[in-house]
Amino acid sequence: MQDTFQDLSDLRARLSAAPGPDAQALRAASDRNGQLTKPPGALGRLEDLAIWMGGWQGTDRPRAARPHVVIFAGNHGVTAQGVSAFPAEVTAQMVLNFQAGGAAINQLSRQFGAQMDVYPLDLDRPTADFTQGPAMDEAAFLHALQTGWTAVDPQADLLVTGEMGIGNTTSAAAVALALYGGQADDWVGRGTGVDDAGLALKARVVSEGVARHAGATGLEVLRCLGGRELAGMAGAIARARSLRIPVILDGFICTAAAACLEAETPGALDHCVAGHVSEEPGHARLLAKLGKEPLLRLGLRLGEGSGAALAIGVVQGAVACHSGMATFAEAGVSDG
Amino acid sequence: MQDTFQDLSDLRARLSAAPGPDAQALRAASDRNGQLTKPPGALGRLEDLAIWMGGWQGTDRPRAARPHVVIFAGNHGVTAQGVSAFPAEVTAQMVLNFQAGGAAINQLSRQFGAQMDVYPLDLDRPTADFTQGPAMDEAAFLHALQTGWTAVDPQADLLVTGEMGIGNTTSAAAVALALYGGQADDWVGRGTGVDDAGLALKARVVSEGVARHAGATGLEVLRCLGGRELAGMAGAIARARSLRIPVILDGFICTAAAACLEAETPGALDHCVAGHVSEEPGHARLLAKLGKEPLLRLGLRLGEGSGAALAIGVVQGAVACHSGMATFAEAGVSDG
Repeated sequence: MQDTFQDLSDLRARLSAAPGPDAQALRAASDRNGQLTKPPGALGRLEDLAIWMGGWQGTDRPRAARPHVVIFAGNHGVTAQGVSAFPAEVTAQMVLNFQAGGAAINQLSRQFGAQMDVYPLDLDRPTADFTQGPAMDEAAFLHALQTGWTAVDPQADLLVTGEMGIGNTTSAAAVALALYGGQADDWVGRGTGVDDAGLALKARVVSEGVARHAGATGLEVLRCLGGRELAGMAGAIARARSLRIPVILDGFICTAAAACLEAETPGALDHCVAGHVSEEPGHARLLAKLGKEPLLRLGLRLGEGSGAALAIGVVQGAVACHSGMATFAEAGVSDG
Repeated sequence: MQDTFQDLSDLRARLSAAPGPDAQALRAASDRNGQLTKPPGALGRLEDLAIWMGGWQGTDRPRAARPHVVIFAGNHGVTAQGVSAFPAEVTAQMVLNFQAGGAAINQLSRQFGAQMDVYPLDLDRPTADFTQGPAMDEAAFLHALQTGWTAVDPQADLLVTGEMGIGNTTSAAAVALALYGGQADDWVGRGTGVDDAGLALKARVVSEGVARHAGATGLEVLRCLGGRELAGMAGAIARARSLRIPVILDGFICTAAAACLEAETPGALDHCVAGHVSEEPGHARLLAKLGKEPLLRLGLRLGEGSGAALAIGVVQGAVACHSGMATFAEAGVSDG
């Protein structure tokens, strides 16, 4: 029987009671880092990353040998407003592509040795158009969160959550505007490739949606303006926290979903690192709000967890150095 | 019998006659990229990288399954001036660490499936102090270049060159100043960790050395101010070009060595991508002079080929997507 939460108040309680990193392991990993055969600090961010992994995994020898990539797909009622360059049926077509192994995320998962699972979430029942009412009722929202929660392999040593959902940059922009304010223009971008008119339309739709759900906070923002795949990612990220599995955040949509957890419970994303910053302009803003510095800056804007999956390689490099290198004493190298 | 060049004028002739990328393969790889199941441009820099790999490998399906990491080590007479935070015997100690598998580069090579070879270059005979005379005579220089040339596995599909040599950030700074001008302060940095007085000393030593060899250009700069490990890297990078093997440049020292090839023959580094930009401040300047945008910015300053080896993962991700993804037609996905 899967361990899961019963309702939203149970989820909130679990977020509040979630464990932090292991302080003793953090110290031990930091001590080990200081003894490795390199000048102090010479591996730069890789050193911080390995120590952070050690803290969450509760060991001075962290691993990234069993990464798990979980992809959620959902459809969005707001596409009726014409906010995407691609038709909504592409969501289901791409799920078939994921299942057949043909998408970018399949190649990246294989390259970095990750188990990859795909969860299409009621693709034949798009969320409601959020300019008209809440994207999801409580039952649908709870179901998507629970699907995410139970999707995480408890044996994984690293988690990536990804998404597919035509229209979901519009949803993510609405979530970001509701959480952090500003103007809709600050948060909308070209997504899969809308033109200037499409961009203006997205901003208008996002403004309307956020106005419609004014006063929503935390998880309620995710229910009213998000989508099933965003809720799935949030559920998976929350579960990873309860299991102390480190998470690599992907792009704008993943980060918007995650930000609802942070808005609900400050510190809820302490077990998350930003895998990359995407070309979608709202993403850099979101990461700045969350105080997360991206590992990669390569101009990706695909979603699917692709940027985070690419960053698995960086994390694997960091823990390989940290856990595999000889110490000065072991190697008989003079220590400065 | 190894194919190698006979003397410096033969090397110069080979640099001038070196092949470019395969134009037909570049077009085919670009065409393929446009048909893959993703919005146009959505994989950002990974797309350019895969097409570039395809051009050099002469195929629309590039690979990065046989990376080769070649490390050269050398000692520097200029350490007699007190320019390093570590004693010169660390070079030989670290070579033993490489051979025993305990260094950062060993872990990174293993993580990304690279063959790794180490070439200690006459460690018991440091180069001459370049403030007193040329670092190497022609015979020593030729030998180091040829060692690098023959070190490259012709079956490799990607090359990383790395180095170890106490004192070699001073040598690299002198090379950079001789090639590009400016002030010594523009090019010196803290290396393995010198203090402010050490930094001022490095700048003085670099200025003196460059003044002593005023008028040197191209490969002659490398002979007079470089070191055996820099010459080894330059030889390997030149050989990779003759074999059309793409190269990932590492940090400041690797890039300074490579820059001598570019100064000798403009375009000599067209088969090279910058793996990362290091914390050594001269590195970003050097990359700007060469017009190379780094793949990673993670604050590394270790050398050993470590930043380039980490970037193997990025290149592997890029070619995995490019060569493994389904096309819109294959997957039955609607194309925008």
